[in-house]
Amino acid sequence: MTFISIREVAPRDGLQNEDPIPADGKVELIDALSGTGVRRIEAVSFVHPKAIPQMADADEVWSRITRNPDVRYSALIPNTRGAQRALAAGLREIEVVVSASDTHNRRNLNRTTDESLDDIAGLIPLVHAAGATLEVIVATSFGCPFEGDISPTRVAEIVARVRADGADRIAFGDTTGMATPRRVRDLLSEVRPDLLHFHDTRGTGLANIVTALELGIVEFDASAGGLGGCPYAPGASGNVATEEVVHMLHDMGYDTGIDLDRLIATAELAERLVGRRLTSGVLRAGPRTRLV
Amino acid sequence: MTFISIREVAPRDGLQNEDPIPADGKVELIDALSGTGVRRIEAVSFVHPKAIPQMADADEVWSRITRNPDVRYSALIPNTRGAQRALAAGLREIEVVVSASDTHNRRNLNRTTDESLDDIAGLIPLVHAAGATLEVIVATSFGCPFEGDISPTRVAEIVARVRADGADRIAFGDTTGMATPRRVRDLLSEVRPDLLHFHDTRGTGLANIVTALELGIVEFDASAGGLGGCPYAPGASGNVATEEVVHMLHDMGYDTGIDLDRLIATAELAERLVGRRLTSGVLRAGPRTRLV
Repeated sequence: MTFISIREVAPRDGLQNEDPIPADGKVELIDALSGTGVRRIEAVSFVHPKAIPQMADADEVWSRITRNPDVRYSALIPNTRGAQRALAAGLREIEVVVSASDTHNRRNLNRTTDESLDDIAGLIPLVHAAGATLEVIVATSFGCPFEGDISPTRVAEIVARVRADGADRIAFGDTTGMATPRRVRDLLSEVRPDLLHFHDTRGTGLANIVTALELGIVEFDASAGGLGGCPYAPGASGNVATEEVVHMLHDMGYDTGIDLDRLIATAELAERLVGRRLTSGVLRAGPRTRLV
Repeated sequence: MTFISIREVAPRDGLQNEDPIPADGKVELIDALSGTGVRRIEAVSFVHPKAIPQMADADEVWSRITRNPDVRYSALIPNTRGAQRALAAGLREIEVVVSASDTHNRRNLNRTTDESLDDIAGLIPLVHAAGATLEVIVATSFGCPFEGDISPTRVAEIVARVRADGADRIAFGDTTGMATPRRVRDLLSEVRPDLLHFHDTRGTGLANIVTALELGIVEFDASAGGLGGCPYAPGASGNVATEEVVHMLHDMGYDTGIDLDRLIATAELAERLVGRRLTSGVLRAGPRTRLV
């Protein structure tokens, strides 16, 4: 049975795109997630509190969670200051984002893609010196909400650059849900990531994952309850919902290590914490094995 | 470019699972759909008004729509009386449902699957004598909300029976969204339908369609806006949303004949008519080509 590695991103990518919730709720969510059997959790991001108020209490949250020795925790950082904070806090899996689209990079990080790539080149020795790893997440890999289609060649150039600079891992982010099975095939025939991060903004989230599985990808991000919206389309879905991904993978014969019932209970907790109805189908209807 | 034939089912399967709307709205919806380029519309069902009050005005709706000569219209019927009404009204594409699950058939039609199959055998000569065709939709083909998994062999037996009795076409219905890509492969390796009808109850709708495309299926049902819920899971999605299906198919290089912008406008109309927010991602976020 093939093992598919799910990284749960609700505490960071999910909550970053919701109204702020207290640290208590974040700690409760992370600890509930670490009890589902999931092996990796993107727990916090160390960003300036004015930029992302939702993550202002990252140090507190990280210090208060109960560390599960079977779980690898990671943090997103935007710059050297963030990396220093994350490393000082004891994180050993660090993620940084750069957009394949220059316009999106400017909007998101207030600098050009090339400037971000230079920053990343400077970060890598710092991270490695602390015995940590750096994953580069290439945002807008499947399309940019400002520029439209992104050429797979462009993504491949970024990957070549950061690999040459010493990046340990590469992820492709479908930042605003522009991927389709065709775009997945087009990009992956040009360059392959370690991990794929899909959004379900236009309904293609699971179709994209199935296509990626056929191409041999075995690591995916997902967010409990589909937590997190799309900043450019109010009311639209964000990340693929972990329970929908796991439900489908298990029925297809894949192993994720995750207990689906506990995961659904955790998605229910996520829904209570953010105080809005989440649209995840498996959260609403239960697994296909739940009979009337 | 491969042509994929979409049958739009919002006016019947969609509205049948919503609170009743006036005939005016139904006529407006069907006429808007017939202007999108879609070639087939499941327009009405001729059922007893006490059983399905939402379809009580089927004769009126059917008589008032503007028939587009490029569109094939069909009607669902539950029994001989319904078939007589549909044929008298001028319909020439008739659909009838039978469930692969006996429990679901009893709940839905108040008789056993075998009794329904006998009824269908009796219906076929009547339909053929009027120069019309009969499609048999095998409900719960991918699982039953009461009985659980349905054996592909069971579905194949039903198909063999109705084909022997003279049915013109076969559709498989994923009545409560229990299909996954694995279930699609399992069933289609045993027996193939002319058309597939998927629900998106658990997020797998488009993944199932991609899998079916790989297996050579070229006809699918879909409902504008994803109209229609799941009767066994309040708040959960029902039919796959036509604009999500068409959006993905077009980006994958398939032709559907449908103008996506007009279809989205029609899904917006459907949303106004039923007076509730529909969850279709392409309705909420627009197509991937719509830039910020």
